[in-house]
Amino acid sequence: MERKGILFVLSGPSGAGKGTVCKALMDTKTPLKLSISVTTRSPRDGEQEGLNYFFRSVAEFEEMIAADALLEWAKVYNNFYGTPRSFVEQQLAAGHDVFLEIDIQGAMQVKRRFPNGVFIFLIPPSQRELESRILGRGSETTESFNIRTSAARDELQKMREYDYVVVNDVVADACVRIRSIIEAEHAQVRRNLYLIENW
Amino acid sequence: MERKGILFVLSGPSGAGKGTVCKALMDTKTPLKLSISVTTRSPRDGEQEGLNYFFRSVAEFEEMIAADALLEWAKVYNNFYGTPRSFVEQQLAAGHDVFLEIDIQGAMQVKRRFPNGVFIFLIPPSQRELESRILGRGSETTESFNIRTSAARDELQKMREYDYVVVNDVVADACVRIRSIIEAEHAQVRRNLYLIENW
Repeated sequence: MERKGILFVLSGPSGAGKGTVCKALMDTKTPLKLSISVTTRSPRDGEQEGLNYFFRSVAEFEEMIAADALLEWAKVYNNFYGTPRSFVEQQLAAGHDVFLEIDIQGAMQVKRRFPNGVFIFLIPPSQRELESRILGRGSETTESFNIRTSAARDELQKMREYDYVVVNDVVADACVRIRSIIEAEHAQVRRNLYLIENW
Repeated sequence: MERKGILFVLSGPSGAGKGTVCKALMDTKTPLKLSISVTTRSPRDGEQEGLNYFFRSVAEFEEMIAADALLEWAKVYNNFYGTPRSFVEQQLAAGHDVFLEIDIQGAMQVKRRFPNGVFIFLIPPSQRELESRILGRGSETTESFNIRTSAARDELQKMREYDYVVVNDVVADACVRIRSIIEAEHAQVRRNLYLIENW
């Protein structure tokens, strides 16, 4: 079957385990191209252009914003980070699925610019589990803990904007569910109408 | 996660291998309840009421039609066959997924009465393969062969009415795709909005 590339966006509230699930998915043989971000920060030891990041000057980054060449972007501690549209579009055109792991604000930006993407919302199994994960990081004061758990509750409401929700109870199980979503999306009739013409 | 039952309808052109795929799915540990048909024909040796079929008189069957108690029905060689709505609804209410394997005409009847079902279109990998499968049955004259292959081409157009299309190249692979569809459908946000309220 001819297989066109699909953009999958994994997002969800803080503490859901997006990074862990994304890494586990990439470590298995799931055929996905991880989206590579563009950033204005300096490369760290061992980081390679076009592999870890695309490294650009602030002026170049601002040109990309102006040219609508980023699916989303944000400024974090004086550095810019963004998702280059061209990389995503080239991979999709070559038939590769692209995987983008990003916070909710970024995902909502991507959705506006790329509504054909498939948006997956990762959530922790329960509020209690989320609280325990945030505490487990060990770096929280009571105040910052309360702010973060309250923010996570608000963020959960954003689920309505997504196509799928995956509960991250066990990382391997969450990966199985995400791989099922990838497979099922490829089987959607609207993505396979060419079969009728080619028959 | 609270898991509500979903009705999955497997259909497709003649020669796609619906029966084989359905049997393979049931033989594996996919947690699906196979829909049980109601029929007016007599039980054959070993067939059990409520297991193979619900056996009913013609008068009873006609009452079910009148009461809109069948999701679909057809008359085949003087016998009536149909899908009882109550069995499907009871299984779904108990949280079980229900699987219904049926021809295209029946599937279209079910879709009208049960639009919340998930409709999967099974197709052979190619026209050549379909022709070879029809020939393989050995019972075809040239004329009936031509009628059947032409009908299959027409039936392929019905793909647009379905949610998913699965190519039946290798039965085990088709089953994997169907299981992915089942898993992904359960992950759809619209089926999980209760998570927001229960959080």
